[in-house]
Amino acid sequence: MSHLAAPLARLVENLQRLPGIGQKSAQRLAFHILNMPKKDADELTQAIIEAREKIHECSVCCNLTEHELCPICRADGRDKTTICVVEDARDVIALERTREYNGLYHVLHGTISPMDGIGPEQLRIKQLLTRVAENDISEVIMATNPTVEGDATALYISKLLSPFGVRVTRLAYGIPVGGDLEYADEVTLRRSLEGRSQI
Amino acid sequence: MSHLAAPLARLVENLQRLPGIGQKSAQRLAFHILNMPKKDADELTQAIIEAREKIHECSVCCNLTEHELCPICRADGRDKTTICVVEDARDVIALERTREYNGLYHVLHGTISPMDGIGPEQLRIKQLLTRVAENDISEVIMATNPTVEGDATALYISKLLSPFGVRVTRLAYGIPVGGDLEYADEVTLRRSLEGRSQI
Repeated sequence: MSHLAAPLARLVENLQRLPGIGQKSAQRLAFHILNMPKKDADELTQAIIEAREKIHECSVCCNLTEHELCPICRADGRDKTTICVVEDARDVIALERTREYNGLYHVLHGTISPMDGIGPEQLRIKQLLTRVAENDISEVIMATNPTVEGDATALYISKLLSPFGVRVTRLAYGIPVGGDLEYADEVTLRRSLEGRSQI
Repeated sequence: MSHLAAPLARLVENLQRLPGIGQKSAQRLAFHILNMPKKDADELTQAIIEAREKIHECSVCCNLTEHELCPICRADGRDKTTICVVEDARDVIALERTREYNGLYHVLHGTISPMDGIGPEQLRIKQLLTRVAENDISEVIMATNPTVEGDATALYISKLLSPFGVRVTRLAYGIPVGGDLEYADEVTLRRSLEGRSQI
């Protein structure tokens, strides 16, 4: 790096801090950014600045949006009695891609993780309880990740929800479609056996 | 993408235009950028803007630099009679990493490529000829890439240099160290045979 001009080295360093960007790709990106047409480079920096300025949490579901309400909370024709609880906004995108779910979401922005100093109060759990209390909700689907933290968070929230008499469900565990039994880990296989259904 | 807020979608789009960044990584990067501390995000955009403003070509070797001369042209103790000709500034970094070469460089900023409409006049060939004419240069090492364009460019330049009576050499071709003969392509193997040396 010693033979990189200082402003270039600084750019490489900053790019390298991004997730999944190693030294080589940071360098490649930096040189690409240097050689970009001015218009494209301006658009890139502007996009970063604007996204950070304009994007905030939806006042209902805490999904990311530039408006008061996110497009899903604003949409007509969605089932407003079902809430799917996810860890972060990317999970909303993943679930929307399935075209299977037509209810609303609630984005927690993390999971309970004492090791990382994240307790329930750092998540959007209070907002979820308020939503369930104030609206006519029939089902809350816990769609946190199938990890220790995701499971613990789902369990914690389901306990908080029990006084409301709402149905709380959890996404099914199992072997991924197109996957290979041979390569499935034993915990997944065990869960997949437990959750077996009649053909 | 339809459920991404517009400023976020715009950021993803801009990131996706960068080399090696697909849709999924663009999305991952965009969310990361949104969640970054303000200080880091400001530093990133500032680094992009500054690198583009301050970096230009060294007035001697056309390497990228923020000063009149690049660090290598400025350095004492380098062999100023040898010039290594490379396609772009990243090749300088790669060669410097070897700690083997102690001469100067000349960065062409591309190769002759009629298919892409790049002729000799778009490269920094004239500057190279001036350097060789005006300085006491004993050897020019052609270190363009081992591709059709790289070879053609090396050959073209070596012809232009012949009136100067300077020694023109080319990097050795051969099988990569640690590579496997079985997987080497036949052209590389043939070059490696041609270039064999006595043990």
